[in-house]
Amino acid sequence: MARTRGEREIIAGIRQKAAGRPDGLLAGIGDDCALFCTGEGLVNLVTTDSMVEGVHFDLAWHPAHSLGRKAAAVNISDIAAMGGVPRYALLSLGLTASTQESWLAEFMAGFFSMLDEHRVCLIGGDTVQTGKELMLSVTVLGEGQRERLLCRSGARVGDLVLVSGFLGEAAAGLSLCRQGRQAEACWQRLVAAHLDPVPQVALGRTLAESGLVHAMMDLSDGLATDLAHICAESGVGAEVVAADLPLSGQLLEAAESCCHSALDWALSGGEDYQLLFTAPPDALPALARLPGGASLRPVGRIVAGRGVFLQDGCGQREISYAGYEHFR
Amino acid sequence: MARTRGEREIIAGIRQKAAGRPDGLLAGIGDDCALFCTGEGLVNLVTTDSMVEGVHFDLAWHPAHSLGRKAAAVNISDIAAMGGVPRYALLSLGLTASTQESWLAEFMAGFFSMLDEHRVCLIGGDTVQTGKELMLSVTVLGEGQRERLLCRSGARVGDLVLVSGFLGEAAAGLSLCRQGRQAEACWQRLVAAHLDPVPQVALGRTLAESGLVHAMMDLSDGLATDLAHICAESGVGAEVVAADLPLSGQLLEAAESCCHSALDWALSGGEDYQLLFTAPPDALPALARLPGGASLRPVGRIVAGRGVFLQDGCGQREISYAGYEHFR
Repeated sequence: MARTRGEREIIAGIRQKAAGRPDGLLAGIGDDCALFCTGEGLVNLVTTDSMVEGVHFDLAWHPAHSLGRKAAAVNISDIAAMGGVPRYALLSLGLTASTQESWLAEFMAGFFSMLDEHRVCLIGGDTVQTGKELMLSVTVLGEGQRERLLCRSGARVGDLVLVSGFLGEAAAGLSLCRQGRQAEACWQRLVAAHLDPVPQVALGRTLAESGLVHAMMDLSDGLATDLAHICAESGVGAEVVAADLPLSGQLLEAAESCCHSALDWALSGGEDYQLLFTAPPDALPALARLPGGASLRPVGRIVAGRGVFLQDGCGQREISYAGYEHFR
Repeated sequence: MARTRGEREIIAGIRQKAAGRPDGLLAGIGDDCALFCTGEGLVNLVTTDSMVEGVHFDLAWHPAHSLGRKAAAVNISDIAAMGGVPRYALLSLGLTASTQESWLAEFMAGFFSMLDEHRVCLIGGDTVQTGKELMLSVTVLGEGQRERLLCRSGARVGDLVLVSGFLGEAAAGLSLCRQGRQAEACWQRLVAAHLDPVPQVALGRTLAESGLVHAMMDLSDGLATDLAHICAESGVGAEVVAADLPLSGQLLEAAESCCHSALDWALSGGEDYQLLFTAPPDALPALARLPGGASLRPVGRIVAGRGVFLQDGCGQREISYAGYEHFR
């Protein structure tokens, strides 16, 4: 369908901001398709993720700028999760009749700021009008060396299960936002983890290039669900030790303040966009010495069998896929 | 966010159907990203398009199967529009609480049938829950020889403007559906043009490989808007001759029956997904001899200046971007 003048102006503005042309990009916005070359000897990675207002974000507390950053970040994180280099993005914007131009300008500024941090170039997209809810659909393309990229299917019995950073922070931040407490200074790190997550691109590449890691993915759905994916793809099981989960002091304080279980946030909160990976135990010292290695924590191990089990003071129970269930 | 069992079953079913692995595909559904190689000496094409219920389709008359075909077709058409070969697809499904499993099965069967016709492999995607409207966002990747692919920017003063097939049929079909007349046997071709358009992949490749064409795109927004895009990208103007527009007998009958202008459907109806291209006048005999060449019609010419002008019995008037305005 034809675009109105308003839509054409939006697209023209976006196109102008996306005008830089990195090596390998032959044609960006302005044709039926974007054209790009893959680096010599490299393979392509592609991922897509959609975010819907009221399901994945709430405009009541999510500033346009950080929402723009997050829409890009969650896809860049999928490239990071395999150890690839993000290169290109496509953005489908489903705008409502009430979307303000100023909101859109802030959103796009945020989107571009995240792309710029990772030298990702916007090469295509689409704007459509939706009904009541804003909808954002982003595709990110990347590249990497085939023999270095890490899949979910490589976990082996005996591997350690490791994570980067702290768990549950984004879920705690979301809880605080829902309670209208996002402006309280003491929770800024947790709130930022929800509003403006940081994709672990450099660490993902470092881990992939180290040759020490067997399987990797990013923590988007929570440890219980994401580790279940690694187990299912690898044909193995896993045991997670509750006492070993990296929980920050701020998370524990927020849990007390919100009357919520910090463990539940860490296991099933989702949206941390940290890395989850497996590696043999003897790789631990070398992993710790890598750039960013100080943020890595073993939280369990890969075992024979099926399913993800949690060991805590009360014994062992299955937690596979026990994430936040948004589709009933 | 975590998927429920229902969602995981949908994804598992889709993944099973997408299990074929063509040459070049290294990893499909099941990891954070899909991985693929580009054919030697070839470049990548990528395009994305979203369709929203109530804006781009109406479930009252759009059967799930043909909607699935169309969601794939409109993106495959963008690859065809540059003369590329479509290879891979990603599908983001925004489903509502009322989406039935049987509807989704039919939709996916249609989507896969269009992919299969063009040997396109589904390699990734996303399912999310939306509010009231279904939303479909599709990305298609393809490949082609850089020096053969046709952009919008190549039109030259003196070129003929040509189209494939008939114009306005999809718009007429949409009008008939809106009037509840989609079951009337006499309009089946027009209704099918709206519900189940045919991307011109083989013809697009033939035209690109012929070396006879200067600029090309697909007719998604209507001739008035799409030709304005070619003119803007090429820095030229165009004149269209009303009497030369290929209007089928069925279109003229439908125009009379619906009390609508056939010319308006042809110029601004959109969604024909035929090819629009420019070529020098002396290429006309060679174009006519190509496979599919009999469907090609000159409808105007490229001139110096700016804008698209229509010549009819009343003289000449500007029609640039005079398409259906869906974003007010």
